[in-house]
Amino acid sequence: MDLWFTELYENASGYTIKIKETLYSGKSKYQQLDILQTEQLGKMMVLDGLIMLTEANEFSYHEMIAHVPMTAHPNPERVLIIGGGDGGTAREVLKHNCVKECVMVEIDELVIEKSKEFFPQIASAFDNTKLNLLVQDGFKYIEDNKNAFDVVIIDSTDPIGPAEPLFSEHFYKNVNACLKSDGLMSAQSESPYLYNEIIRQMYTDMGKAFPIVKMYTGYVPFYPTGMWSFAFASKKYHPYSKPRIDMIDKIDNLQYFNKEIYCTCFALPNFARKLLDEDDK
Amino acid sequence: MDLWFTELYENASGYTIKIKETLYSGKSKYQQLDILQTEQLGKMMVLDGLIMLTEANEFSYHEMIAHVPMTAHPNPERVLIIGGGDGGTAREVLKHNCVKECVMVEIDELVIEKSKEFFPQIASAFDNTKLNLLVQDGFKYIEDNKNAFDVVIIDSTDPIGPAEPLFSEHFYKNVNACLKSDGLMSAQSESPYLYNEIIRQMYTDMGKAFPIVKMYTGYVPFYPTGMWSFAFASKKYHPYSKPRIDMIDKIDNLQYFNKEIYCTCFALPNFARKLLDEDDK
Repeated sequence: MDLWFTELYENASGYTIKIKETLYSGKSKYQQLDILQTEQLGKMMVLDGLIMLTEANEFSYHEMIAHVPMTAHPNPERVLIIGGGDGGTAREVLKHNCVKECVMVEIDELVIEKSKEFFPQIASAFDNTKLNLLVQDGFKYIEDNKNAFDVVIIDSTDPIGPAEPLFSEHFYKNVNACLKSDGLMSAQSESPYLYNEIIRQMYTDMGKAFPIVKMYTGYVPFYPTGMWSFAFASKKYHPYSKPRIDMIDKIDNLQYFNKEIYCTCFALPNFARKLLDEDDK
Repeated sequence: MDLWFTELYENASGYTIKIKETLYSGKSKYQQLDILQTEQLGKMMVLDGLIMLTEANEFSYHEMIAHVPMTAHPNPERVLIIGGGDGGTAREVLKHNCVKECVMVEIDELVIEKSKEFFPQIASAFDNTKLNLLVQDGFKYIEDNKNAFDVVIIDSTDPIGPAEPLFSEHFYKNVNACLKSDGLMSAQSESPYLYNEIIRQMYTDMGKAFPIVKMYTGYVPFYPTGMWSFAFASKKYHPYSKPRIDMIDKIDNLQYFNKEIYCTCFALPNFARKLLDEDDK
């Protein structure tokens, strides 16, 4: 018997992958979680029918969402991750020795528990004493903490389901207030090939909350179209103001990120610039 | 009734797309050609079951395979395209006014004929008086023409089927001989996420034929993983030796390529560097 899992994009195209077996299937208060053993890409995590990560290629997403803001800030000591229940983003953040505390706020305990069980290499940061893991609503946490962090990383699912409040002007203004005066943030921001309206709205909202807003991109093969974008928003530093470029060589075990990637990932194809109303020349 | 076309990668993952109707289905001496109307991405061309292009996103592939070598050469007057029967690469090459002649050698007349019929906007270059279109074996043409071109572009299918001879040391040495003393070439070179052995072999072979060999990449959502690589091989010029950067603003109707893309597309993630035995720091 051949088993295939298929994720559809706008019910008109999709990604399909051969499955050896279902390792876990369950439902939390927030979402459906499935963990599948694929033939080609190791274990795979699926939330509400959407692929979150594959063991083989998760490095691309986690390195790009974490190391770009961590490089842009001259001294990121206190870092906040909203979401990211699998632990991959925390693992990358904690590769930076300058970090004194990494607070991670994940709403869904089931994702954390099952990541520890099925993805120990991704969830490795959960044992790190610098990690302060809180199971609660990230929206609320951000509202309650002001002027507290150097870097905030929004490692959320799509703007449908539990992550919906994380895509709003109100939320980005709270993130701004949660950051110190020279703080900055990153957030996953969907594929520019597919989700034009979501992206336009997201960057418009972010632009009302931050003086500096940029898009950067990376190759993430398990997400729709393989082109994934990330929003960079900052109160003071541009990506090239005070980046810690020389530190990049000292980060352990990078499979994607490097100095050149940092220096080039903000370059956008014309169709993506147009989406952000940037000049296309 | 819902119709879906699915292309599998190594029979373990794949891309699937909803089809409204089959517009053409036929077989030439060389391959099976299907043209399908998709719901999401316009018309789609499929050769031997592999997606060649979609109307909505073909610009990414054609602009990247054509404009990178055309920018790297200081004065590309004579250009040769091997393959590229749909006409998209020729369309991009002929946007450069400096071109005096573009020779295009496509082995399969059926692809040309059906592109004219179903993809007139992609096949627009077939009416250009600077285009010299030859229906013959590109391998043989290259062997018979020495010291004749400034730029050669290998716009081939995968190294299985009619394009197989276009992936060999012998062929790349012929391309070298077909180029003038300061000539350079580009070629599609598969996805670094999937085809490690093919890519290693291809770049090793190319390295035996050219002193300068580099990989560059672009986001091509209709090809496996969405990360597509291109080989750049050159007898004299590095990508940054004498690039015609200022000319880029004058190229008409670019949906992907721009100055920043040229200046950043040679940056590779660590896993791709490793594939080419480059230092990963």
